[in-house]
Amino acid sequence: MVIVMEPGSSIEQVENIKNKLQKAGFQIHIIPYGTSRITIGVIGEVARQQLEDMAIKAMPGVEKIFYIFKPYKLASREFKSEDTIIQVGDAVIGGKQIQVIAGPCAVESEGQALETALAVKKAGATLFRGGAFKPRTSPYSFQGLGEKALQILAMVRKETGLSVVTEVMDTDTLPLVAEYADILQVGARNMQNYQLLKKLGEYRKPVLLKRGSSASVEEWLLAAEYILAGGNYQVILCERGIRTFANSTRYTLDLSVVPLVKSLTHLPVLVDPSHATGKWQLVPPMSRAAIAAGADGIIVEVHPNPEDALSDGAQSLTFENFNSMMHDIKSVAKAVGRE
Amino acid sequence: MVIVMEPGSSIEQVENIKNKLQKAGFQIHIIPYGTSRITIGVIGEVARQQLEDMAIKAMPGVEKIFYIFKPYKLASREFKSEDTIIQVGDAVIGGKQIQVIAGPCAVESEGQALETALAVKKAGATLFRGGAFKPRTSPYSFQGLGEKALQILAMVRKETGLSVVTEVMDTDTLPLVAEYADILQVGARNMQNYQLLKKLGEYRKPVLLKRGSSASVEEWLLAAEYILAGGNYQVILCERGIRTFANSTRYTLDLSVVPLVKSLTHLPVLVDPSHATGKWQLVPPMSRAAIAAGADGIIVEVHPNPEDALSDGAQSLTFENFNSMMHDIKSVAKAVGRE
Amino acid sequence: MVIVMEPGSSIEQVENIKNKLQKAGFQIHIIPYGTSRITIGVIGEVARQQLEDMAIKAMPGVEKIFYIFKPYKLASREFKSEDTIIQVGDAVIGGKQIQVIAGPCAVESEGQALETALAVKKAGATLFRGGAFKPRTSPYSFQGLGEKALQILAMVRKETGLSVVTEVMDTDTLPLVAEYADILQVGARNMQNYQLLKKLGEYRKPVLLKRGSSASVEEWLLAAEYILAGGNYQVILCERGIRTFANSTRYTLDLSVVPLVKSLTHLPVLVDPSHATGKWQLVPPMSRAAIAAGADGIIVEVHPNPEDALSDGAQSLTFENFNSMMHDIKSVAKAVGRE
Amino acid sequence: MVIVMEPGSSIEQVENIKNKLQKAGFQIHIIPYGTSRITIGVIGEVARQQLEDMAIKAMPGVEKIFYIFKPYKLASREFKSEDTIIQVGDAVIGGKQIQVIAGPCAVESEGQALETALAVKKAGATLFRGGAFKPRTSPYSFQGLGEKALQILAMVRKETGLSVVTEVMDTDTLPLVAEYADILQVGARNMQNYQLLKKLGEYRKPVLLKRGSSASVEEWLLAAEYILAGGNYQVILCERGIRTFANSTRYTLDLSVVPLVKSLTHLPVLVDPSHATGKWQLVPPMSRAAIAAGADGIIVEVHPNPEDALSDGAQSLTFENFNSMMHDIKSVAKAVGRE
Repeated sequence: MVIVMEPGSSIEQVENIKNKLQKAGFQIHIIPYGTSRITIGVIGEVARQQLEDMAIKAMPGVEKIFYIFKPYKLASREFKSEDTIIQVGDAVIGGKQIQVIAGPCAVESEGQALETALAVKKAGATLFRGGAFKPRTSPYSFQGLGEKALQILAMVRKETGLSVVTEVMDTDTLPLVAEYADILQVGARNMQNYQLLKKLGEYRKPVLLKRGSSASVEEWLLAAEYILAGGNYQVILCERGIRTFANSTRYTLDLSVVPLVKSLTHLPVLVDPSHATGKWQLVPPMSRAAIAAGADGIIVEVHPNPEDALSDGAQSLTFENFNSMMHDIKSVAKAVGRE
Repeated sequence: MVIVMEPGSSIEQVENIKNKLQKAGFQIHIIPYGTSRITIGVIGEVARQQLEDMAIKAMPGVEKIFYIFKPYKLASREFKSEDTIIQVGDAVIGGKQIQVIAGPCAVESEGQALETALAVKKAGATLFRGGAFKPRTSPYSFQGLGEKALQILAMVRKETGLSVVTEVMDTDTLPLVAEYADILQVGARNMQNYQLLKKLGEYRKPVLLKRGSSASVEEWLLAAEYILAGGNYQVILCERGIRTFANSTRYTLDLSVVPLVKSLTHLPVLVDPSHATGKWQLVPPMSRAAIAAGADGIIVEVHPNPEDALSDGAQSLTFENFNSMMHDIKSVAKAVGRE
Repeated sequence: MVIVMEPGSSIEQVENIKNKLQKAGFQIHIIPYGTSRITIGVIGEVARQQLEDMAIKAMPGVEKIFYIFKPYKLASREFKSEDTIIQVGDAVIGGKQIQVIAGPCAVESEGQALETALAVKKAGATLFRGGAFKPRTSPYSFQGLGEKALQILAMVRKETGLSVVTEVMDTDTLPLVAEYADILQVGARNMQNYQLLKKLGEYRKPVLLKRGSSASVEEWLLAAEYILAGGNYQVILCERGIRTFANSTRYTLDLSVVPLVKSLTHLPVLVDPSHATGKWQLVPPMSRAAIAAGADGIIVEVHPNPEDALSDGAQSLTFENFNSMMHDIKSVAKAVGRE
Repeated sequence: MVIVMEPGSSIEQVENIKNKLQKAGFQIHIIPYGTSRITIGVIGEVARQQLEDMAIKAMPGVEKIFYIFKPYKLASREFKSEDTIIQVGDAVIGGKQIQVIAGPCAVESEGQALETALAVKKAGATLFRGGAFKPRTSPYSFQGLGEKALQILAMVRKETGLSVVTEVMDTDTLPLVAEYADILQVGARNMQNYQLLKKLGEYRKPVLLKRGSSASVEEWLLAAEYILAGGNYQVILCERGIRTFANSTRYTLDLSVVPLVKSLTHLPVLVDPSHATGKWQLVPPMSRAAIAAGADGIIVEVHPNPEDALSDGAQSLTFENFNSMMHDIKSVAKAVGRE
């Protein structure tokens, strides 16, 4: 259930309602609604009768009450009609401006990271990505540089001013990763790692939540709901390809979910064409397509020497290709009324 | 095997080679290569030794000989590096200009067809689509108006000047449909109907070949090869969604195949976002995305009153929505250097 | 709508009802129901009011009338509750006895066919399969021996007494194939070739209808309905694997549909583990599993020398392996109360 | 690399080799091979030259050395050719006897658990399953009784003598769950939760590893490898359905992987037809099919009153249905030479 407060309602009024509902056993979320109002999300099995008995509707400051019938509540457009906008350093995700997150699959060395960061920044990227802890299918594959990579990311941020995005794989390393990262990325394989999602709900840092490779839209939004329900409202969704019979690309980029999901939720939606296609040649056209479909940004892999990359070389762009792609993206963004 | 003739080689030289190879049992395809050359496609198991014995390389006019290792030959970029351009009435498919094919799922009446055709033409569509024979999952569903619909299409063409595209379902009705249609559409369910593909190879009319909903890229190009091998080189490919677990759209629009397929083949590639998504709200963003990904055009369903449509109402655009979509598409086309 | 006649109702009574309904524009199917009754299937949009106005319920011989809400009518268990049993030569498909159809993917020569037929008969197979016209993904692949193969099949039948099953690819060759075959097989790629299905509805020969590799259960039963609606009630369903992301087998054998489909329809259901798995090693265990799941039989590929087969060698059993498999199948059949 | 020791080689010989290789930086696994031999698994990038330099082949007790080219090493049949047999209480998993694990989706109360355990034991089940911590798609769904449920499981084991299987969802609750459970179940959503897999590698309790709903066979075996590489060699695999377009069952039970996986690995393989099909009517036939395909057992959901179950009621068997299913399974097991 959602309680929308009148414009100009007081903090005290909100607190009164909150206290009354908490005493009755409900879980309460207080979220700004536009610039001048407050919304109170009430989670729990709310019987209409019970609400009437509690006379919430009549409490001072309450404008209206409504119910959400979708299984995800806080993530739904019904709960919050205007777009969620997330500020990370200088970048504003979910607003009019398209954001481009770029960097290597894995941080391999100070030199590789800084060189890449400077190159992508110059080309117009607004955030830097780089893996420190890498989830790998085989226990014997390169698993990332770990804390050393996080330190390199911090150095890159200091040198370039770019905010950094890196994956958090598990609850053990979450506190460490959260110390360094500006955005905490949850990989596709962890989309339904509920322990991790719940812990992320306790943080107040943006989370980039990738869609699981066999997740339905509803499951994806419910995964976001796990984080939101914990009180962390800064969730960014990211489509990165689904598993299908089609084997000419690594995964099948399900771009139709971009406009679909944006109609269902207020959260920003990004697209990762590098992992989805697995082929660097397809990254520029699918980045253009993502923007044209309405994505709030893209996250792509860039490497100084893709053929020498310790992971995902085949899907990484060179600096030159990234440059040229950025040029094209700007035109498409403008054509669809974005920046 | 492909024999590329020197610029300015004579018809006689080409005929000599053709005759020699046909006598040896090969199947020959003579296809223009750019504006000033001729390519001779030689189909059959060609042993290098045999070719050397025949001394084709030394025949007058021969510039070079090469082999194609892909299973599809005539459809491959290796066989023909420049884009195939197909002229249909005033529309040029596969060139710089984006083509928009629009119209109702099924032709329902003269009035419905003409009204729609005039509206989509005004908004900028260059071809008209309308189903006469409809492949339906159930034997008890509306199967189209048949020949009556074809006559209506002819009337629409006469009144509007738009070329018409309609589906041919089987070899029985092929001669009839071919009398009326400017482009013969093969539906997804018929992509591997080899009898139909072979018969279409005997026609000299453009064929719009939709991808089967569970077809790999290779299978799709081999289906095109069936038509090309018959001597009909005017094949237009069309991605219309694949079957996956994802059920929030009717099919999953596999947009990454657009740039991928265009790198593998010289044939034009269109996208059908109406059938792929099954939701009219997603048609405009996915049309924009298709153009941004490099498609040569789109085919979309438009109906005067979608809610009254005899089939596919949920995925049909109103005139107003189509108009607004055309406006956006023009901007995106321009942004990616198309018209 | 279905009209069940009383036991002992007369032909005249049935004809009266039939005539009345046909005059009113309905399509009528008269089908035996058990040993002593007649069922009249009425296809068309039947308004209850209309029926009442026609007073069908009060006509002599009518026991009861009911409606079928599934999209497939004649194929549904509601229409006909007891199993359809199809007699082909000595083999009874859909009864208590498990049927095993075995033979090579393609008929390659008289010797190969006869040798295989004698071997599989000796091991207990009750029908012989062999491809004459082969649907091939590439126009350049071996397409079968055609009529020559049909003549070989006729010879095999004469020599061994085994009924023969062979694929019919299209309407052009249907009359020819129907002259020779005891069961007309429709391949997965043709499951929605409506022209072919309709023509098959006019024949009075059993049709083995394979499930399309991306067909839902409903689509499969509606494809059967196309044949039944034409008046050919001898349809045998065959699960042969669906297209999924899983690539360690050629297709994914969807064995759960066997008990599911048998609860929805009265038609017999076979399983083809050879095409589904693409690996001969998996054919015996999956044949056992098919029988245990309730299939009415299996269709498998057997070849004297799989490694020399012109097609599908990797999934063909040797005589020895087939022998050993038949031994195991008999035990499993007995364990689930079959023969 | 794998070093097979001679029969009768001494502990000292094994230790010598182990020490030498560990000093060189390799990770060592010592695993019995049959009843009288020892195998030493050497993980790390082993150059043949290096091995020759170390002269391992010449060390006392070494019979032979070989390399494994599959990405999974310890899980492969090449590493260990004979079946892994896991003893849990009285039940032997992976041997000649088929094991049936039965119980409710979630432990709901002492009464419900004990009543079910007594009923399934009487019918022949050898292990009891029951969820304490439930991974749920929605944060607002019933998440299991937690520790209370674990205590109930302990009580059930005491009262019935049945060993208990329950899911461990995360590393936080792993120590607690491991105190109570005889087999630790990893759910499909956690198949690539590497933190959890690594921690499970440190335990010496059997792990039941379900296949992820979009996992390839190789990914599944590599997930097992994570556990084995930690030194926990008691891994039981469980197929529970994959995500495909087919929507007439909850998932698609991929039964062909049973014989396939058993040829690739020495680990036991179970099948879960309850979650795969989502329909209790399909559980008995698919259980029979699983056994016929070569599974080492099944895990099924049984509930005293499925319609009142707090989760998964539609796929739970009543006691009566379970009884009848057990009867059929026994016949099939016997037919395929199992008990």
